[in-house]
Amino acid sequence: MSQKPDDHRICFIGDSFVQGTGDPLCLGWAGRLAQRAVANGFRLTHYNLGIRRNTSRDIATRWLAECTARLPAGCVPHAVFSFGVNDTMMENGTRRIEEAESIANFRIILQEAASRYAVLAVGPPPMPDDAHLQRIAQLDRQFALHAAECGIPYLSVWQALRDDAHWLDEARADDGAHPGRRGYDRLAALVEEWDKWWFKK
Amino acid sequence: MSQKPDDHRICFIGDSFVQGTGDPLCLGWAGRLAQRAVANGFRLTHYNLGIRRNTSRDIATRWLAECTARLPAGCVPHAVFSFGVNDTMMENGTRRIEEAESIANFRIILQEAASRYAVLAVGPPPMPDDAHLQRIAQLDRQFALHAAECGIPYLSVWQALRDDAHWLDEARADDGAHPGRRGYDRLAALVEEWDKWWFKK
Repeated sequence: MSQKPDDHRICFIGDSFVQGTGDPLCLGWAGRLAQRAVANGFRLTHYNLGIRRNTSRDIATRWLAECTARLPAGCVPHAVFSFGVNDTMMENGTRRIEEAESIANFRIILQEAASRYAVLAVGPPPMPDDAHLQRIAQLDRQFALHAAECGIPYLSVWQALRDDAHWLDEARADDGAHPGRRGYDRLAALVEEWDKWWFKK
Repeated sequence: MSQKPDDHRICFIGDSFVQGTGDPLCLGWAGRLAQRAVANGFRLTHYNLGIRRNTSRDIATRWLAECTARLPAGCVPHAVFSFGVNDTMMENGTRRIEEAESIANFRIILQEAASRYAVLAVGPPPMPDDAHLQRIAQLDRQFALHAAECGIPYLSVWQALRDDAHWLDEARADDGAHPGRRGYDRLAALVEEWDKWWFKK
């Protein structure tokens, strides 16, 4: 396919699932999407800004400096955010980030980002632990509502991945949280099939 | 191969060549090295912190905050630095960063990083433009000398890549600077064959 002219750049900002932890290919879903976009003829530079254990609070403190350094004037800038699994994690009997703060962080990050870049949000993936999964599902519903209020396209993924043939099995076989090659393949496909995704064939 | 127990984490910090610009696989040499390390049985999380157009001055301002967010207590932390092509670029008749400042940045970054993490430095790759290549070669000699003074392992790569069957041809065929799949394969192999590289079979 002939190459398209625009200088597209994209930051994927989030947690270990964005980083691609557990993926033997070291691409994660972000890297798979970038590969496909390039194969589809887009001039795309991708920056993976997923960090393990990051909550929405961690991301709120760093996303703007890290994106600003990577999305200069003159490019077509894009940002994809995905977080929430760590917010809903229990540690020593306490939830790492209370729901009200997660939602406030989500709104402030996404609204500020959308004033600068083309922006998408992808919901948190499922965990094998059922109580954790219920908290993820609850936060995902809230994120979807607030994204709609802010006019940010939002893709919920936990149900499709819970029902996927591989995601939770790979997570149990790995470290109890992160999938492997086939799980990341599936999450990349969910985003690529989404009508809001930019770099289609 | 059975998995090794340590929680290794690594940041690759640098410019577009670190980012992997032009690589259809969207891995670059850093991603290829991470893939190989995982295939060799290491538990490794890799963070690609290459940014297009970054000079040593740009890197000096951001590397510590970005690495600190990614290399927490409890992991085995590693950092690989590679920059210099942008420092030696001429813009409107002026070199972007004078040699003395490039060297000062190199020393301060590498010494500070080596006080915190296991550190390696990889020299700047070659450019097709001959005058630019001469400036790269000169800066590479200086970086090698100063790395030796500071006790930082340093790998010079421009000669091997200039003589490579693909690097400069791929760069000319792309945007005049960045190689493609085979160039990045070769640079990853140079680092992997280096006796200072950590994650060997």
